[in-house]
Amino acid sequence: MKRDEVIFGTRAVIETINSGREIEKVFVQKDISNDQVKELFHLSRSLRIPTLKVPKEKLNRITRKNHQGVIAFTSAINYASLDNVLSSVFEKGKEPFILILDRITDVRNFGAIARTAECAGADAILIPTKESAQINSDAVKTSAGALNHIAVCRTENLKSELHFLKESGLNIVGCTEKASESIYGSELNGPIGLVMGSEENGISTEILKACHSLIAIPQLGKISSLNVSVAAGISMFEVVRQRSLQK
Amino acid sequence: MKRDEVIFGTRAVIETINSGREIEKVFVQKDISNDQVKELFHLSRSLRIPTLKVPKEKLNRITRKNHQGVIAFTSAINYASLDNVLSSVFEKGKEPFILILDRITDVRNFGAIARTAECAGADAILIPTKESAQINSDAVKTSAGALNHIAVCRTENLKSELHFLKESGLNIVGCTEKASESIYGSELNGPIGLVMGSEENGISTEILKACHSLIAIPQLGKISSLNVSVAAGISMFEVVRQRSLQK
Repeated sequence: MKRDEVIFGTRAVIETINSGREIEKVFVQKDISNDQVKELFHLSRSLRIPTLKVPKEKLNRITRKNHQGVIAFTSAINYASLDNVLSSVFEKGKEPFILILDRITDVRNFGAIARTAECAGADAILIPTKESAQINSDAVKTSAGALNHIAVCRTENLKSELHFLKESGLNIVGCTEKASESIYGSELNGPIGLVMGSEENGISTEILKACHSLIAIPQLGKISSLNVSVAAGISMFEVVRQRSLQK
Repeated sequence: MKRDEVIFGTRAVIETINSGREIEKVFVQKDISNDQVKELFHLSRSLRIPTLKVPKEKLNRITRKNHQGVIAFTSAINYASLDNVLSSVFEKGKEPFILILDRITDVRNFGAIARTAECAGADAILIPTKESAQINSDAVKTSAGALNHIAVCRTENLKSELHFLKESGLNIVGCTEKASESIYGSELNGPIGLVMGSEENGISTEILKACHSLIAIPQLGKISSLNVSVAAGISMFEVVRQRSLQK
């Protein structure tokens, strides 16, 4: 497991990016603009590193050291390219199984889901760059190390990435309490992209619309609310079950 | 939700027991013996309240108040009688679904499993008195309130309680990585007692032997270790799936 670190200072952040280290995100103080900061923005944009302008107070809360208005968080994993993952799966003659997490921001939930995804044989986890859990050493720990084995891909535009998956032949299925069809009555074999939403408000409307179909886990009790990591486990293993029948 | 409390002092503990409050367990300082303590032992034995002799230091670590060698923990729920649960289920013409947890000691894992069990329509959770998570307000919170809706039964002898369940017509199935049969190839419909073991070392040998059959969740990844609350969710919902096919 790689250590996740906080890097501060414009030059230090630029050098860390140039060294090839994976960066989770960069915070830049919003009222700062100089040649180094412009160089940083140019670099982070070209490498698609999430870079946000934030108030000075936010930076001061992260470190008391002299940050010069620039702070970066390194990632505990290396992100994979979804394109490469799909090519590799198809080359092996297998059917892709991609887990898509729409705004799972809790680090422990994310880690727990990654653990289950690895056990279920998913090929990758796809997350949006914004509104996702930071993949730090806590996430890797909660995943029981699974994040060192499963590919994680991030995208600035989840909707267009779902479009890409559809064009690649994947059946995009959203798991939501709002669905009328049961996961047990749905065809989940074949190339699949399974979408799970946030524990607070589920899958966003835009992403729900981008799904081929919506399915629900039947709820037989009074509280009717499964934890998202348990719900993800039940759905992913229904895929495993249906795939095992094909063989 | 009832508050869980720590009660100290022999007379206070006796009065709390007599008031009908549910007690998780009682600790008595091991070198103390007087008429009140004898009365307490008599009372706790007749009501099957777990009562343990412990060193004074253990009590001192729990409270700095004058405990007089006696401390009790009240429960955040009322325990149910397994006998009553089964009778009630059979009277409704339904097939019992009992979840049996062998030494799940982590309060949050227990709470998470209880939440899923309620959503899966399980009739009760059966736990051994010893080596189980304390059912306190944290457990109720992690269960998202499910522990207020699902019956929890405890037993001093899990093995003999499994024997009672067998005699009542339940199929006792242990979920363990050691099994060669997959959960998807097993008949899990009909009256069932599903056994899950601790995250550290699974179901104990004695309880494994008491099961009619053993089943495993297929593991397709490299880490091959599901979190126990996710594993419990996958197994319980396989019961839900198979039952839904019968209708």
